[in-house]
Amino acid sequence: MNMQSHSLERVKSVKDMLDTDSYQAWLQYRPIGAKKEEYKKWLAAIEVKEESKILESAADELKKGIQSMLGVTLDPDTYGEGRIVLGTYEQVDLKQYGISPDTFRDISDEGYLLKSVFEKEERAILLIGKTDRGALYAAFHLLRLLQKEVPIDPIAVVESPRNQFRMINQWDNMDGSIERGYSGQSIFYADNDFKEDFTRVKDYARLLASVGINAISINNVNVWDVETKLISKTFLPKVKAVSSIFSAYGIIPFLSINYASPMELGGLGTADPLSAEVEKWWKDKVAEIYEYIPDFGGFIVKADSEGRPGPFTYNRGHVEGANVLAKALKPFDGKVIWRCFVYNHLQDWRDRSTDRARAAYDHFKPLDGKFLDNVILQIKNGPMDFQVREPVSPLLGAMTQTNQMLEFQIAQEYTGQQIDVCYLIPQWKEVLDFETYTKGEGSKIKSIVDGSLHDYKYSGIAAVSNIGNDANWTGHTLAQANLYGYGRLIWNPELTTEQITKEWIHLTFGHDREVVDTVEYILLHSWKVYEKYTAPLGIGWMVNPNHHYGPNVDGYEYSKWGTYHFADRDGIGVDRTVETGTGYCSQYEEPNAKVYDSLELCPDELLLFFHHVPYTHQLKSGKTVIQHIYDTHFEGVEEVEAFIDKWNGIEGKVDKAIFENVKQRLKMQRDNAMEWRDQVNTYFYRKSGILDQQNRTIHP
Amino acid sequence: MNMQSHSLERVKSVKDMLDTDSYQAWLQYRPIGAKKEEYKKWLAAIEVKEESKILESAADELKKGIQSMLGVTLDPDTYGEGRIVLGTYEQVDLKQYGISPDTFRDISDEGYLLKSVFEKEERAILLIGKTDRGALYAAFHLLRLLQKEVPIDPIAVVESPRNQFRMINQWDNMDGSIERGYSGQSIFYADNDFKEDFTRVKDYARLLASVGINAISINNVNVWDVETKLISKTFLPKVKAVSSIFSAYGIIPFLSINYASPMELGGLGTADPLSAEVEKWWKDKVAEIYEYIPDFGGFIVKADSEGRPGPFTYNRGHVEGANVLAKALKPFDGKVIWRCFVYNHLQDWRDRSTDRARAAYDHFKPLDGKFLDNVILQIKNGPMDFQVREPVSPLLGAMTQTNQMLEFQIAQEYTGQQIDVCYLIPQWKEVLDFETYTKGEGSKIKSIVDGSLHDYKYSGIAAVSNIGNDANWTGHTLAQANLYGYGRLIWNPELTTEQITKEWIHLTFGHDREVVDTVEYILLHSWKVYEKYTAPLGIGWMVNPNHHYGPNVDGYEYSKWGTYHFADRDGIGVDRTVETGTGYCSQYEEPNAKVYDSLELCPDELLLFFHHVPYTHQLKSGKTVIQHIYDTHFEGVEEVEAFIDKWNGIEGKVDKAIFENVKQRLKMQRDNAMEWRDQVNTYFYRKSGILDQQNRTIHP
Repeated sequence: MNMQSHSLERVKSVKDMLDTDSYQAWLQYRPIGAKKEEYKKWLAAIEVKEESKILESAADELKKGIQSMLGVTLDPDTYGEGRIVLGTYEQVDLKQYGISPDTFRDISDEGYLLKSVFEKEERAILLIGKTDRGALYAAFHLLRLLQKEVPIDPIAVVESPRNQFRMINQWDNMDGSIERGYSGQSIFYADNDFKEDFTRVKDYARLLASVGINAISINNVNVWDVETKLISKTFLPKVKAVSSIFSAYGIIPFLSINYASPMELGGLGTADPLSAEVEKWWKDKVAEIYEYIPDFGGFIVKADSEGRPGPFTYNRGHVEGANVLAKALKPFDGKVIWRCFVYNHLQDWRDRSTDRARAAYDHFKPLDGKFLDNVILQIKNGPMDFQVREPVSPLLGAMTQTNQMLEFQIAQEYTGQQIDVCYLIPQWKEVLDFETYTKGEGSKIKSIVDGSLHDYKYSGIAAVSNIGNDANWTGHTLAQANLYGYGRLIWNPELTTEQITKEWIHLTFGHDREVVDTVEYILLHSWKVYEKYTAPLGIGWMVNPNHHYGPNVDGYEYSKWGTYHFADRDGIGVDRTVETGTGYCSQYEEPNAKVYDSLELCPDELLLFFHHVPYTHQLKSGKTVIQHIYDTHFEGVEEVEAFIDKWNGIEGKVDKAIFENVKQRLKMQRDNAMEWRDQVNTYFYRKSGILDQQNRTIHP
Repeated sequence: MNMQSHSLERVKSVKDMLDTDSYQAWLQYRPIGAKKEEYKKWLAAIEVKEESKILESAADELKKGIQSMLGVTLDPDTYGEGRIVLGTYEQVDLKQYGISPDTFRDISDEGYLLKSVFEKEERAILLIGKTDRGALYAAFHLLRLLQKEVPIDPIAVVESPRNQFRMINQWDNMDGSIERGYSGQSIFYADNDFKEDFTRVKDYARLLASVGINAISINNVNVWDVETKLISKTFLPKVKAVSSIFSAYGIIPFLSINYASPMELGGLGTADPLSAEVEKWWKDKVAEIYEYIPDFGGFIVKADSEGRPGPFTYNRGHVEGANVLAKALKPFDGKVIWRCFVYNHLQDWRDRSTDRARAAYDHFKPLDGKFLDNVILQIKNGPMDFQVREPVSPLLGAMTQTNQMLEFQIAQEYTGQQIDVCYLIPQWKEVLDFETYTKGEGSKIKSIVDGSLHDYKYSGIAAVSNIGNDANWTGHTLAQANLYGYGRLIWNPELTTEQITKEWIHLTFGHDREVVDTVEYILLHSWKVYEKYTAPLGIGWMVNPNHHYGPNVDGYEYSKWGTYHFADRDGIGVDRTVETGTGYCSQYEEPNAKVYDSLELCPDELLLFFHHVPYTHQLKSGKTVIQHIYDTHFEGVEEVEAFIDKWNGIEGKVDKAIFENVKQRLKMQRDNAMEWRDQVNTYFYRKSGILDQQNRTIHP
């Protein structure tokens, strides 16, 4: 079964879809209602202070948005009317508007001032960035305010993004497929080459910039034969072309590389990072790349992971492996983003002492301080792999002398594959707010990845994209909210889930109260609902192998992937305690270590991740484990049915194509939820022999 | 995991492999030892009575074989020496050799006389067929005798094949892949076309004819887009070319067709078999095919099966579906072979009332007598799908007025995929010797499929081929024995397994006693060993989905395929009894129905196919079910290890390439067996909680 076959909207031509709400996503710029005349007083002209690609992008977006929302063509020559002033703080005459240059002292290069000024009968909206990138973000900020129809008189906002790298990882292959893509084929590649039409790439750049994304890697971290050549003359001219599109939106381009490139491209006999010829090869190669792309960001590397080549082949470690690249990139201010998704993927299920959850920490923690300062370790949010529920990776923050980035997965690999709705902002928020106690209280993940806690030189957040060439980008239209929310959340982790959610709904669906409430209800409940009908209590992995959609309780139980639940007739769960288990608990700082290690203190939702317990074990909720499994699985399906009822209630109030898309996917989600419910309940009933207290239907 | 990647020998060029023992298989024609001089007295010349393609093939084979075995070039002009007389009984002057024409009255068109005559100082070996096909079989018979080094003076054999159709089904696709192929790619097709070099096709025809195969379908029963065009002008010239190769060896060509051809090729709006335009289309199409291929055999049809198109789309049944084709073929003496592999492949695992085992009988039995007389129903040996152990299909023989063919699978889809050795002759022998009681005692399957019991007009046996373009044809060299044995067994079902096995070993490996004993030991034990370490007591299906290799106890448990074991903490098995189960047992004649229906009478090896029993149920063997599972799984691995020891003992005594091939596969088999042992034992230990009485290692 190929899940991509569910992408129903792919047939449309680019031209047909450009004007659809689905395609425009949160940049629809729908006509303004009541506030229109007020806004028009302020928005008649535009004054762009200097020429730059990024300011040009900002001005274009303002013209496009304001034309669409207000019917006003911004005119550079109209005076006496309200006007937008767009530029950097060095370009704009701050004194003229009574603004102190100090305003810009404490904000980052990407920060900005957004201010309304009414002086001498003249109205101006100032969009002043510390750099032109800040001005671009100010422009998107203004457009967002207008579309939300909030007052802009007076307004004065100074903002900086909290995180330094706000990155997207495309897992696109050059044959046009996307690893873990659930929205059609790549918008970048087809037939082992770049596509010819970059219309969608530019629109993607607009979408990303509008939520503050500032870096992108444009090919899959698994780098196969053809993709290896992206850093060769064969493809560099086209990489440059795509990069320049992103650069105009302040987005720095990165490439994933094949660690064996010196052999496969360079014809060397080795890729040993300590070989002088390898070091020279990378040095020359990097110089060549920067000739094409002066603002190139650097490399993403998945090495010695799941069978990909890496320094281990030559008895070298991650440090040597990353540093040889870092050395080559250093003169150009380039970075090495080195992924920590390293574990034994040929594990023997009989071996109870090896624990995949331990792997990243065990591999990398001892290496703290040994990487060059332009190496950043990219660490998945959990120790396993983007399950619906995992604890936070104990490696995050555990290295005080090594730059770290957090990795999320917007693509819903294990969370419904954009067939099932699963809004991930609440999950990510929990991760960012998780208290690690690395430096005592106040050591939350968000303070680690923003670089403040350990004073990292480089840090930030990356995430696997969820877009493809489906007309609505994300397969399920509601999955657009995950991309939007990702950008907004990592720009400012203090935003609440509710703020982000409402914002996206207003931009996407307008202001009808019932629509807003309905969409909000579905989104805010969706993660927990998905958790309910899938793998219980943090155990994860009960999915069909390979494609990872749909239930298969034993699907990963006897596999080589280190992914077990150990369910027998008496109980279930992985003992990761110090005394009787794998000792994984000890990788956390106290008191987390103690909490997870303790059967009494461990939170219910992670119980089976840390403990093996009888089915009759009583949870903090008062229920037994087995009754919890039954209850949540019945509830999960009921709640999907409630989603369907609610969604059907707003028919006619939302764009027809979007309505039908979501309606159809909700139906598929119900089928999936029922299958999960019945397989999981039957599996555990057959194993435990314990009846449901409520006597609901469990197929024997 | 793609099992085809295990085909290690595929890299060799055709030229390199032509002379290898692996490639020559049982037609190596190794030099004769002690008997050489005796044979030479008889074999100096050849007298071919008339010209025909088939006699030419026979003569060529005799020349090739005798040259190779005796170093003698058969000469048509040498008199006074021993000579071969090759021809039909109408061509040869029978009186001259004192043979009565009556000899040929009671044998079939494919029968022959093989006789040594020493008169008036002249020696002759007569190879006289009822037709030239019989003469060809006589030639192969003689060559077999010589290679076995048995006395030929005097010799007098009259033989006819017992079965009318002795057929091979290729499941080759035109992209070069083979559905359920475990020996590389197709020898017929590549890149959606026929291959250019038919060297291997001719050698394949020789191999098949040498064991008496007389019909072949050359494309997969699942007919996809490109293959649909095999019956169009696009490909008919090439079909003709391939057919003529087979025809020269007495093998009639068939094609698998797409039931939707009238639409896909003919552009009609329907494929309804009762539509006049559809009927006409098939009539014209068949006439066109026979213009190209006058000896064309007919169509194989997989319709309304596993999603393939068929008459059901038009609310028609199998009768209408098959008869429209039969009508078109009738004027040319063509046949429709209609597969009975029809069941609900979208079953709900929750539905305990539907039973896939019932399907073929339920579908077809009521249709008895309604098919035209050139329709033959092709019925798999068991009611499920070529599992290592199944009961015999109750449909076989249940239709007294409808031609039937039995279908075996030489390709080891569920029996080790030619990685594990699994010699299937003993299994097939059990099937053929199965007493159905359709007409009381003496109603064995072999008497049904040879047409005698119900006086079928057409009948026989077909099997899915196990060959591909691997240098040794079958991936595992020992798997050649299954192809050889299939041909020999269906030629004469009275041959014992031991006879057939010894014959193949002598032809393939020569006469070294230790080699013969070793290979014989491995072959004769292999089926039971495979059964031991895989799915126990007839339950089947505990394999990885899709590719079907390796253990996965729940792999098909919650699937749509109708393939369940229903194991819970107390017991396992499918209740197919009349009183409490699906009633499948009642499809058998008495006393079979009663035997299977009875927990006491049902044979151990099929217990779980017919009954759901507690793990503590005591088998006839005296063991409990759970202890049987543990014991057989431990024993299975030990016996594979014994195979390895035995095989290693004959190193140096067999061809090096063959030795290494088998050695390597046995190693893979051991890994597979261990994985099966441990997963199955752990699964049932976890579920039952019952310890192994012998305290061997079961991973908890």
